[in-house]
Amino acid sequence: MGLLKFSPSPVKKKRVSVCLTPSMVDLFKVEDSIAVVIDVLRATSSMCVAFDHGVEKIVPVESIEECLSYREKGYLVAGERNGEMVEGFDFGNSPFSYRDKSLKGRSIAMTTTNGTQAIHAVSKAKKVVVGSFANISVLTEWLGKQDENILILCSGWKNRINLEDTIFAGALVKRLRPYYDLHEDSALIAETLFKAANFRKRYFLRSSSHFQRLMHLNLQKDVKYCLRKDTHPVIPIMENGYLVNILPRK
Amino acid sequence: MGLLKFSPSPVKKKRVSVCLTPSMVDLFKVEDSIAVVIDVLRATSSMCVAFDHGVEKIVPVESIEECLSYREKGYLVAGERNGEMVEGFDFGNSPFSYRDKSLKGRSIAMTTTNGTQAIHAVSKAKKVVVGSFANISVLTEWLGKQDENILILCSGWKNRINLEDTIFAGALVKRLRPYYDLHEDSALIAETLFKAANFRKRYFLRSSSHFQRLMHLNLQKDVKYCLRKDTHPVIPIMENGYLVNILPRK
Repeated sequence: MGLLKFSPSPVKKKRVSVCLTPSMVDLFKVEDSIAVVIDVLRATSSMCVAFDHGVEKIVPVESIEECLSYREKGYLVAGERNGEMVEGFDFGNSPFSYRDKSLKGRSIAMTTTNGTQAIHAVSKAKKVVVGSFANISVLTEWLGKQDENILILCSGWKNRINLEDTIFAGALVKRLRPYYDLHEDSALIAETLFKAANFRKRYFLRSSSHFQRLMHLNLQKDVKYCLRKDTHPVIPIMENGYLVNILPRK
Repeated sequence: MGLLKFSPSPVKKKRVSVCLTPSMVDLFKVEDSIAVVIDVLRATSSMCVAFDHGVEKIVPVESIEECLSYREKGYLVAGERNGEMVEGFDFGNSPFSYRDKSLKGRSIAMTTTNGTQAIHAVSKAKKVVVGSFANISVLTEWLGKQDENILILCSGWKNRINLEDTIFAGALVKRLRPYYDLHEDSALIAETLFKAANFRKRYFLRSSSHFQRLMHLNLQKDVKYCLRKDTHPVIPIMENGYLVNILPRK
C-alpha cells in the first residue's frame, strides 16, 4: 500500500522534524540536530536584512536589561515586546530599520518576544541557524549539504503555535524532502499547510492572529516585506554565543 | 481589507479554540470552556461505540494499576499501551471489541496511552465531552446549542501533535463556524488541514506516524472504522468522574 509520502527510503537516513512552538522543544532530540529557528514576523527576517547590510554579529538575549547592558560594549541595542519597540532602544523589529549601510561592521544586541527566546531554547543543538523567506533558497541549499538531522523550530507567539511560522516551516520541509526523511506528523502538517497557503500567502496570512496584531500597529509594509523570498541571501549561524553570517555577499 | 475569515462578528461572541496536544493545555483557559477531547485512533472512537452498545458508564483512569483496581467493583477493565492491549485486561482499544450487546448496562474502567490522559488534562473545564468521527454530527449540534467557549483538545501521541486528531479538530472547527468565532491560529491550521485532507482522508492518514504504528499491529480495519462518520450518534460527557451518554438511542 502506498506509503510513499512518509516511508523512510533506504538511501536517505537523516530526518527533518518540525517543532511548532518552543513549549514543545523538550520532546525533540535537540542535541542530535541542526536547529533552524524561525520567526517570520519579524525577528529572523530582520536578522537576515541586518547581516545582508554588513552587520558583523548579533547577540540574541532574553531580557531587556541584558540587552541594554551591551550598549556600554559598543553594541547597538534592538528589539520589541508585543510588537512594539522597547523605549530607549536603537531599533525595534522592523526589517526596514536594518536596511542601512551604516550598520556595516556593527554589532547588535537583540531581544524579541519570541524569536530570541527560541534561539536560546535550542542552544544545545549541534548548530543553530536562522531562517526566513528572505534567505530560504541559500538556507535550503546549505542544509541539503549537512549530514545531520534537522529540527525546525517555530518561534510562535508566547509559546502558542502561529500560522506564519508553521507555513514557513512547511516551505522548508517541502524543499528539504529530496535530502531528508520525515518522521513527525508536525512536519507533514506544516508542509500541507504551506501547500494550501501557497499562491495566496498574503490572503491566508491575513487570517493569522499575529498579522492582525501587526495591522493594529500599522505594520502592513513589514509583513509584506517579510513574506518576500530570497531578498537577503545570508546564513546567520550561532558561533560562541553570537550570530554571524557565513555567507557574506561578494 | 478582507479579514472575513477571522474577524469576530458583532453577533457571535463565544469562541472555539484548538489545543493540538495536552502538553500545551496550560496556555488555554480550560476553566472557561467546554472541552472536547479527541483521540480518533482509537480511544474516543471506541468510547462512542461502547456507549452506543448500551455501556452505562466509563471511568477514564491514568494508570494500569488504578484501572485493574476497578475490577473488584464489578467493572470491565480496558485499555492499551503503545497500541497494544494490556495483559490481563478484558479489552484493548479496538472499536470492534465494543460492538457487543452483552455490554449493555456494564461499567468500564479504561486507560489508554493518550486519550484518557487528555481527559484528565481538562478536568477543570465547565464540561468535558468526547468527540470522534463516530459522533461528529450529534456532537456539533449539541455544541452549537451551548453558550460557552469551546476548547478542542487533541490527545496527540505522547504529548506530540498527530495528524488524525488535528484533522478531526479541523472538521469540528469547520462545522462550528456558524456558531463560534476563531481566536487561535491552531484552529485555522486544523481547519485548513481538514480541508486539504478531505476527499482523500484515508490516503492522507496513511502518511501519519500513528497510522503506521497501527499498521504494524495489523489494525487497518480499526483505522477504517474510526474514520467513518456518524456511526455511533452518542454524546459521552463527564459527570462526577464518569463518562456517561446523554443521548441514548431510543
